[in-house]
Formats: sequence, C-alpha cells, structure tokens
Amino acid sequence: MKASDKVDHQRINARLDEMAKIGATAGGGVNRQALSTEDAAAQSLLIAWGAEIGLEPSIDEIGNLFLTLAGTDPGLDPVMTGSHMDSQPTGGRYDGIYGVMASLEALHAIVDAGMKPARGIELVSWVNEEGSRFAPSLMGSGVHAGTRSLADALALRDADGVSVAEAIEALEPVLGHVPRRPLGRQAACYVEAHIEQGPVLERNGETIGIVTGIQGKHTYRVTVTGEAAHAGTAPHGERKDALMAAARIVLALGREFEDPEDITRYTVGRFNVSPNAPSVVPREVVFSIDLRHPDGARLLRMSDSVQEICAGQAGPCTVRAVRLYEAAPIVFDDGIQDLIEKAASGLSVPHRRMLSAAGHDAGLMQHACPSGMLFIPSKDGITHNEAEYSHPSDITEGARVLADVLARLAG
Amino acid sequence: MKASDKVDHQRINARLDEMAKIGATAGGGVNRQALSTEDAAAQSLLIAWGAEIGLEPSIDEIGNLFLTLAGTDPGLDPVMTGSHMDSQPTGGRYDGIYGVMASLEALHAIVDAGMKPARGIELVSWVNEEGSRFAPSLMGSGVHAGTRSLADALALRDADGVSVAEAIEALEPVLGHVPRRPLGRQAACYVEAHIEQGPVLERNGETIGIVTGIQGKHTYRVTVTGEAAHAGTAPHGERKDALMAAARIVLALGREFEDPEDITRYTVGRFNVSPNAPSVVPREVVFSIDLRHPDGARLLRMSDSVQEICAGQAGPCTVRAVRLYEAAPIVFDDGIQDLIEKAASGLSVPHRRMLSAAGHDAGLMQHACPSGMLFIPSKDGITHNEAEYSHPSDITEGARVLADVLARLAG
Repeated sequence: MKASDKVDHQRINARLDEMAKIGATAGGGVNRQALSTEDAAAQSLLIAWGAEIGLEPSIDEIGNLFLTLAGTDPGLDPVMTGSHMDSQPTGGRYDGIYGVMASLEALHAIVDAGMKPARGIELVSWVNEEGSRFAPSLMGSGVHAGTRSLADALALRDADGVSVAEAIEALEPVLGHVPRRPLGRQAACYVEAHIEQGPVLERNGETIGIVTGIQGKHTYRVTVTGEAAHAGTAPHGERKDALMAAARIVLALGREFEDPEDITRYTVGRFNVSPNAPSVVPREVVFSIDLRHPDGARLLRMSDSVQEICAGQAGPCTVRAVRLYEAAPIVFDDGIQDLIEKAASGLSVPHRRMLSAAGHDAGLMQHACPSGMLFIPSKDGITHNEAEYSHPSDITEGARVLADVLARLAG
Repeated sequence: MKASDKVDHQRINARLDEMAKIGATAGGGVNRQALSTEDAAAQSLLIAWGAEIGLEPSIDEIGNLFLTLAGTDPGLDPVMTGSHMDSQPTGGRYDGIYGVMASLEALHAIVDAGMKPARGIELVSWVNEEGSRFAPSLMGSGVHAGTRSLADALALRDADGVSVAEAIEALEPVLGHVPRRPLGRQAACYVEAHIEQGPVLERNGETIGIVTGIQGKHTYRVTVTGEAAHAGTAPHGERKDALMAAARIVLALGREFEDPEDITRYTVGRFNVSPNAPSVVPREVVFSIDLRHPDGARLLRMSDSVQEICAGQAGPCTVRAVRLYEAAPIVFDDGIQDLIEKAASGLSVPHRRMLSAAGHDAGLMQHACPSGMLFIPSKDGITHNEAEYSHPSDITEGARVLADVLARLAG
C-alpha cells in the first residue's frame, strides 16, 4: 500500500472550502492577512484538524506554526512540509493554503495507511509569506532559515503602526495555549506544494510541476534627466527630451535582452514623467526595470549591461540607473526533484520540470536544508486575484504525489 | 518728425513697473488673472493714463476694454492695437501687458507729435487671453472676431464655479462708469506688440521680430491597450506590453516627423502607464501628441499619418489615436509685415521675420481684419514664469517701431 492510496479527494477539497470561509470576500476570494484574527482562526482550525490524527502543535518566536507527527527514531531530523495560510488583501482561495492542506492530507494518508516512518514529519505554516500587511514578504521562512533577523522581523510595522511583535501578542487569547518551540530547529529536508500561479501546466495538459528552482531577479530604478521646454518654441536640435531618451533606453534594453528561448523576463512596469503636461517637453522620466533569469551568471551579465545601454541611449540627457534589489536564482535539491518525478510517474500523473517565476518559502528553506516544490495548475495562470482557481482533481493529485514523496523521505 | 521720436523711454518703463505692482508676487512676477480685482485695477489705471491724452474708454459685452483716439475722418474704420493685461497665476511682468503699454506709449507719442491721423486709433485690452482662470484662452479676441460665441464665453466657469458673466458683474463697482460699446465693431487693421516668449531674437542679437504667422497645431490623445501580466511568469512571446508598444510608437512618430530644417515641433509631454507597478507588465498607456508646423498642408499630412504609424507599431496591442485639437496656421497680412519692416529699418533697429510658436489675440484678429505682430526679445526665452524679463531698451524700441507703424496705418 502507498500513502497516496489513502489521500481522500472529498476531504482535502472540503477542507479547502472550509478554509476559504475564513476571511471570505464578496468576490469569491479571501482576505486573510498575516497575524490577523482571520489568520489565527485558520491556524486554530488547522490545529484542530491535526489533532484528529495526533499531530502535536507548536509555535516559534516569529509565529510559524508547526504540527508534528513523531517518527520512530527520535534521533533523526524530521522531514518538513507545508506552505502559508496568509493571503493578499483580495487574494485567492488557493495561494499558500493549498500547500498546507496538501501537507495535512498527505500526513492523514500516511497515518491512515498505518505507516510508522523513522523520521518525524512536521507540517509548517509559515507566517507572513505575502508581505501585504507587513512588508517585505517571506518573513517566517526567512527568520527560520536565518536569512533574516528575528529582531528586525518583530519590529516590522503594518500601515496602522502595529508591529509584528504586537500582532503576535494580540493573538495570545487564541493561540496562547499552543506550546512554544525554539526558532530554526534543523530539518532533514523540506517539500512544499503550491499552485503554479502561471499558465504553463494548464496549457500543456500537465498536472504536476517539478520545480527545478526559482529564477533570479534584479531590479533597477532609472532616472533620465533632461530639460523642460515649450512644445511650441523649443527646436528639436536643442531639446533635452527625457521621454524620448527613456523610450530609446527601454527599447534598446529590450533588444539587448531578446532571448530566442524566451526565458529572460524583462519588464518596465512603472514609468513616471515630469512635469507630464501635454505642451511641455518632459524634464524627467523615472522608470523601473524588473529583470529575471534562472541562470545566475547570465542574469548578472545582463544586469551589468544596464548602465552602459542607458548611457549609450541618453543622447543629450543624463541618466542614472540604481540597482535596488538583487536575488540570485535558487536551484532546488536534485534528489528531491527526482523523488517528486518518481512519485508522479508512479501515479501516472503527467508532469514536467519547470522553474518558478515567483519567490516561495521553499526558496529560503533551500538555504537551510535540501528543499523542493511541486506545482499544480492554476486556471488561466490567474493569481493574487479573487478569481484564482485550481481544479479539485488537480488538488487531489498534488496531495497524492506529496504523500508518496513524504513517505519516502521519512522512511 | 516721426511718432517714434516722441516715445519716452522713462515713461513706458516706469509704467510697466507700475503695472507690475498690481498683483505682484513674492517671486518678482505677477498674478493678475482675468476679471479679478487685480485685473480691474490694471484696467482702471490704464483708463486713467489714457485720459491724460484724451483717450475715450469703452467696454464691450465680454469685457474687452477699448481706449479710442478719434480720427479726423469719422467715416473710416479705426486702426486697432493692443494686447492683454491678464497673467498666468505665477506669470511674468511682460507677457501681454507689454503690448498694452507699447500701444499706449505709441498713442502718447502720436499725440505728442501733434499728429492728427485720418483714422481713429483704438487701444484694446483683450479680456482673458491666458485662459488660466476661465479656460480656454483667447476668449475676448475670439468673441470680438466672431470665432467664439458670446453666450458660450459668458457661461464659462472658473474653479470656484464663478461664471464669466458673474465675474464681469462683480467688477461693476470699479468699471461700471465706463461706457458700453457694441461687440465686434469693425477695424481697418490690427497690430499687436508682444514679448517673443522664445530665445530666437536674443540669440541673434536682434531687437524686433516681424511675425509672419502663427504655426498650426494638432493634438492627439493616444491610448495603447495591452494586457496586464506577471513580470516573472509571462513569457515575452505571449505578452501584450502596452509600454513597449507605446515606446515604439513614440519613437516611430519621431522618425516620421524628423525635419532637417528643424521647423516641425513634435512633443509627447504626457505619458501615463497603468497599473504602473514595477512587477506588472503594463496594461495601458495613454499619451499626448503635440504637433506643430507653420505650413497647414504639411501639418495636416503629418497629422493624418499618426493613425497609421500607431497601428503599424502596436504589435499585439490595440491603439486608438483621437485628435483633440486642430488649429490651422495663421498667416499675417503681408502689408502689415512690410510696414513693420520699413519702420524697423527706418529706425535702424535689427530685425528678422519669424514665426510665432504660441497663439496670440492677433491670430484671431487676422480672421476679422488684416493683422500683424511685432516681437521684442525675451531673456533666455523664459515665459509664463516669474523670471520673465525683457530689457528696457528693447521695451522702448518696440514701442518706437509700433508708433511709426500706427502713424502710417492711421494716415
């Protein structure tokens, strides 16, 4: 008997529906922001469901919630699995919570199958993955993995001035009874299920994405400075038109980053013109560059060319490009990728290896232990949106693959 | 004796300084908006100065103020001269008011020279040239020349909801004693002096610009519609990036309108991106086109190519270009241009024929009678700005040329 045999299609989908009621929005989505009362309600419900199969809850200092299935050999580091339960303000019903429910269902299946794994398995719900209430995102996993300081995270404040520490304190009446645990306890490995948040699986008729890594990302703020002038009088030969220079730069970068394989992602999403008046030659343009690629060396090479291309297209204007953010690509553990692939093949579920374009808690966990991810399809690739949708049969298939992967990892 | 001999350098410059006190701003400029109490104070002062040399004031239904020097032959249409006294909210001390003061000084000189011209000469101060309180601009001259309806103009409202009619009514206590006159009384011709509002005369060391006409102007609002997408996930091959399409269009139009003679004026001054977020592929860009040329046929030809160029560069996006405004070029009367040139040559004042890039009351008057303009230099071409400056000797030279032109026109 395999663990996946015991995954219950009705149960996991019913539980996802139940979770979607907590913070439900009129538009069919969810507003369940980090450390809100809705978030605490979801955690309480998760603890209750875990208790049904003997999972022991614990919370660390930053508010990550763990549900532990004990292993037969207490000397071995546990296998960790999970995702997050917080959402965007007008978020969907699947982002994050799917991975938590898939992990719970996988543990349920392992227990129901009568398996007694050597390693413990810990389901984790990372706090504040979205970063929409307390920016930046990926807070709980970052503090756990040691890429972010606990003190800095506790001091983050939301728009109302409430700090993370105060928000945790405020949830004491609901979660105060849950035992505390030390921060950053070592795990043997980490596996996360998540919705794809992109269109690739759906378009290719595949159910499981074996995530090979997370692409790297650099961002820039580019300021092009020219000179305001009267649209009627200023001769073109004497103009310092910041908009024309910015347009040349934007298109020249596009040519430079042209990629026959269509892997490079180059986006100018923000573009602000001053004084932005119809009859005034623009004095200044400030625009953003978002540049992503899974190959760290290539990303760096492209990113390093930004300054020169900007300067080369500035004409009579001056240009300043400031690198704001720089995240190297993440490559997930080969062994875990192989395990996910074997599990999917074993269940005859169509799958593909693929990159994640978005950041995930698993990316930070890869710094702490061998980690991996599996994706299930997102309808039309829509995400961070109330219309987010994943098909119930894909929900179940993801949990089945995860169950077999965890059973194997826990021995 | 020529009329110009009697132009008084001290008087005209002192009077300009006096006028600059009405609505003076802390930054050394003027805030004297149309039909404000400051505007009425300036009109009262003008009437008083006119009375010193026997000029008869009258006001028409839209609030244009006329000061009339009677001619010896009442059967002849009068020569008209003037400009405007209203300013931008942070306007300069010369825009408009210079032409009114130059006309007053010219009349003073004609009277002082003992000339008795056959035609009357009417000094006019056009109401609301700037359009900064009651948009659009060129209101008084437009109503006088019949290019705009009186009723529509009276119904215009300022930002506080006050109509032109109500603003005129409110000035009754100050200007109510001034005799009324019928709207649009015919003139033989019209000549206006104005600051250049551009750098051409100063750069070329010339004092008088003989204005040959006003360039035509077309404006567009272009809407490029694509599709918002995630900067990390959306493959370039599937993007509908409105910003990239807009940048292509803006540069393609620039190539199309390239002009070795540097006469064409093509400006994209406003450019708004939605949703304007760094990690979202732009869904929409709305930008303005301001296109000017003195040759009406050529302007129309260029303007008519906008649609096709937009469509040709839109790629996967859709684009809609709406023509918002269309003003044909104005060509001023040849005879008046020649008269100004003769007057300037007669006084050995360096001069050049030149176009006006900006609109002026004289442009509308050309629809009603043979009209012309002369410019004096603007320091660094700065205008609509408290730093606006014209040199006192240029102030006087402009008035001297105008005096000889008016004397000749009035016979």
